[in-house]
Amino acid sequence: MELGVGGSSPPSCTKKMKKEKKFKPSKELPLGFVDRQEKELLTRDFIISNIKEVMIKYGFQYLETPSFEYTESIGKYLPDKERPDQGVFSFQDEKNWLSLRYDLTAPLARYVAKNYLEIPKPFKRYQLGTVWRNEKPGPGRYREFLQFDADFVGTKNLQADAELCILISEIIEKCGLSKEDYIVKISSRKFTEELFKELKIQSSEQSLIILRALDKVDRLGWEEVKKLLGKGRKDSSGDVAKGADLDEKQIEILEKKIKEVKPSSSDVLEIIKIFEAYKFTNYKYDPSVIRGLEYYTGPIFEVNLNFEVRNSKDKIIQFGSIGGGGRYDNLVNNFGNLECPATGISIGIDRLVYALMQKKEFNIKSNKPVVICVFNKEDIKEYVNILKKLRDENIGSEVYPGEGNLKKQMQYANKIGSPAVILYGEDEIKLGKPILRDLKSGKETSIEIDNLSNEIKKIL
Amino acid sequence: MELGVGGSSPPSCTKKMKKEKKFKPSKELPLGFVDRQEKELLTRDFIISNIKEVMIKYGFQYLETPSFEYTESIGKYLPDKERPDQGVFSFQDEKNWLSLRYDLTAPLARYVAKNYLEIPKPFKRYQLGTVWRNEKPGPGRYREFLQFDADFVGTKNLQADAELCILISEIIEKCGLSKEDYIVKISSRKFTEELFKELKIQSSEQSLIILRALDKVDRLGWEEVKKLLGKGRKDSSGDVAKGADLDEKQIEILEKKIKEVKPSSSDVLEIIKIFEAYKFTNYKYDPSVIRGLEYYTGPIFEVNLNFEVRNSKDKIIQFGSIGGGGRYDNLVNNFGNLECPATGISIGIDRLVYALMQKKEFNIKSNKPVVICVFNKEDIKEYVNILKKLRDENIGSEVYPGEGNLKKQMQYANKIGSPAVILYGEDEIKLGKPILRDLKSGKETSIEIDNLSNEIKKIL
Repeated sequence: MELGVGGSSPPSCTKKMKKEKKFKPSKELPLGFVDRQEKELLTRDFIISNIKEVMIKYGFQYLETPSFEYTESIGKYLPDKERPDQGVFSFQDEKNWLSLRYDLTAPLARYVAKNYLEIPKPFKRYQLGTVWRNEKPGPGRYREFLQFDADFVGTKNLQADAELCILISEIIEKCGLSKEDYIVKISSRKFTEELFKELKIQSSEQSLIILRALDKVDRLGWEEVKKLLGKGRKDSSGDVAKGADLDEKQIEILEKKIKEVKPSSSDVLEIIKIFEAYKFTNYKYDPSVIRGLEYYTGPIFEVNLNFEVRNSKDKIIQFGSIGGGGRYDNLVNNFGNLECPATGISIGIDRLVYALMQKKEFNIKSNKPVVICVFNKEDIKEYVNILKKLRDENIGSEVYPGEGNLKKQMQYANKIGSPAVILYGEDEIKLGKPILRDLKSGKETSIEIDNLSNEIKKIL
Repeated sequence: MELGVGGSSPPSCTKKMKKEKKFKPSKELPLGFVDRQEKELLTRDFIISNIKEVMIKYGFQYLETPSFEYTESIGKYLPDKERPDQGVFSFQDEKNWLSLRYDLTAPLARYVAKNYLEIPKPFKRYQLGTVWRNEKPGPGRYREFLQFDADFVGTKNLQADAELCILISEIIEKCGLSKEDYIVKISSRKFTEELFKELKIQSSEQSLIILRALDKVDRLGWEEVKKLLGKGRKDSSGDVAKGADLDEKQIEILEKKIKEVKPSSSDVLEIIKIFEAYKFTNYKYDPSVIRGLEYYTGPIFEVNLNFEVRNSKDKIIQFGSIGGGGRYDNLVNNFGNLECPATGISIGIDRLVYALMQKKEFNIKSNKPVVICVFNKEDIKEYVNILKKLRDENIGSEVYPGEGNLKKQMQYANKIGSPAVILYGEDEIKLGKPILRDLKSGKETSIEIDNLSNEIKKIL
């Protein structure tokens, strides 16, 4: 926190540069990064406080791993292997490579390996944190986003997987969405494993291409995915993606199986049994749920919204999932001989914020301060006297912090969306009765100082 | 948020590698980064919620700029110019350099420049965010930390500077510290400016070396700082820091002036007058307060704690400030011809957390779940029935999530610090009366299901 000694160019130098031509740095943000405004941040806070309440109820421990990890500790689980060097932000630090985390699961595996002997087993932890992806940015595709993760580490008990689906539902409903607004989809890697066996697929490279292709059904539709399953596909930019080289018969079986409505894998059946004990019904078996990450080994989940989400141009967009996860029984084991089955779920908080803000019923209130106008700087004691009384009542308020005349002060109050201004000029000070001006109605009232708070609360 | 398709090594390959010699990634964290545990995080949440309440009361707007900026936009204000390339984490992105922010002020200046026409003037915003310093890590010296900043942009009114000192005091006291626990120190760059004039120092390079030297008085003491003001100083590692080349007479004047107790610069005098209107007394004029960053142009503040803070080895450490700031009237102007005087203050949240956790009076409660033991997996409906009743009452609780026998379940409950376990075996189920075992006292009680919540609340 200690601030070191600074390094702007010295004043005299700046002046000299002005005479030549002063260098102006960019005012813009790099692509894929955004400034976030109050309403969005308050919605985010609302979601986060709901998450924390649910986490305490469900008995999860609060943990935070840092932004950086050694690249080797998390590097093998890059989410986007197609561009392995570009997936993460990496920095060389003397002899080691560090990377900004691209998810919260790989750092958790590192944490568990590091603290294997100390942690309880099972270990239930949650984390909220920014993750970074050094991907090609596009509309709505950011390079940093806030994620929430809850995981059970050190248990094969499928009750853990079931609870993840249930807790994510509780969070979503606590945020004001109804059962009609979302659905938890479940499937299992065991299902695709068996399917690949049936199709006589033995190369793990080929399996991977198939999984990646199937993961795109929602986005591209079956016709395009079939190309990826077969000879390959040329996208709109002309890039050709390598296909899985399946024959027509294989593709036909695959499509039929993926479109099945009844679960066949035993782990999904057991989870459904546990759902029944919880009387949890807001789920759907859906074998087309694939989830990208290859480290999954069992049940996988995805949470989808059922209502329309629009982009900034008011066009309905294909919103995709707001969260998901699954079982990854071998991830911790990569750090050594540590038997540590695990399962986890994530919410993309920014995405949930974005969707939530579009619900008509959802309305987050942002508090704007009442402005006490400054008639004469010498009367600051009078203004502060009022200010302190309002703030003691937790009313957002300020003595006008600028230097403008009364007209400017009113413009300022309107600009910031202030609910009211207080006018306390020479005459009012003599009477000891400031004027409260409601900025919505324009109504002005002369009020005793001690009654101001109550009157303002009526306006708010 | 969308998870791309994964990239761990395929299973067959892993097996093969095991036969040779499996690569084990590091379980350690890079130096200067830490995992943070529940108690610390809850303390942090407590501080943050206090900050947000105070910010609403004081009428600040909530804003968030991203982690990354173009290096050129923030690069000129590197806090540690002695090692300009190592101060920040930078990253080349096609043709541009991006950097992780090292403070929240430089990004704010960029934000204001970018949105100059839209924002209200004055513009009051606050931000909470992680900042990164790519510095040589040391004990207690981290490379990422959480910072809180509040700024007034677009006003020369010194009431803004005064309010910053007052609001930071309110935050600190809201966190449970008393007036005796902290002090806000104030000084002004105008004071050093005048002093340099008196000493006939004209080179800005020399001024900078003097400021850097004076900033170290707290840490090194006057004797060592005098070396830095004179010919230079060799530190414990043998490195020689260049001196400011002042003669003995100049150093003598400097020391005398810095040790003065009465303020001489007009801006400090005016701020003190405003403090009086607010009846704010918990400040001290202290010209030895220098603040590192060179962009300050007027009043500067620093918040110091008065109580003892110990390190992990229980040794009292020189804790330094937990926050500070000052006026920077020219920072926004660097982005173009934008007249935008400003002033701001920061708190190093992690440092405040660290100090607060050492106060005896401070005790943050972390909620651990009640564990419902599993006697027979087939009875899950019975366990979930109890679980739902407890959770409906917001009692942290869980059905044992692992696979161990009763002994292991008790060990688990003790390990996680659970307040109680619920034993609901075959016999108890027949009676419909589970046994509640208080893990602190060891007392066991047979209770009707509907009375469980009340009994547990008594234990908590």
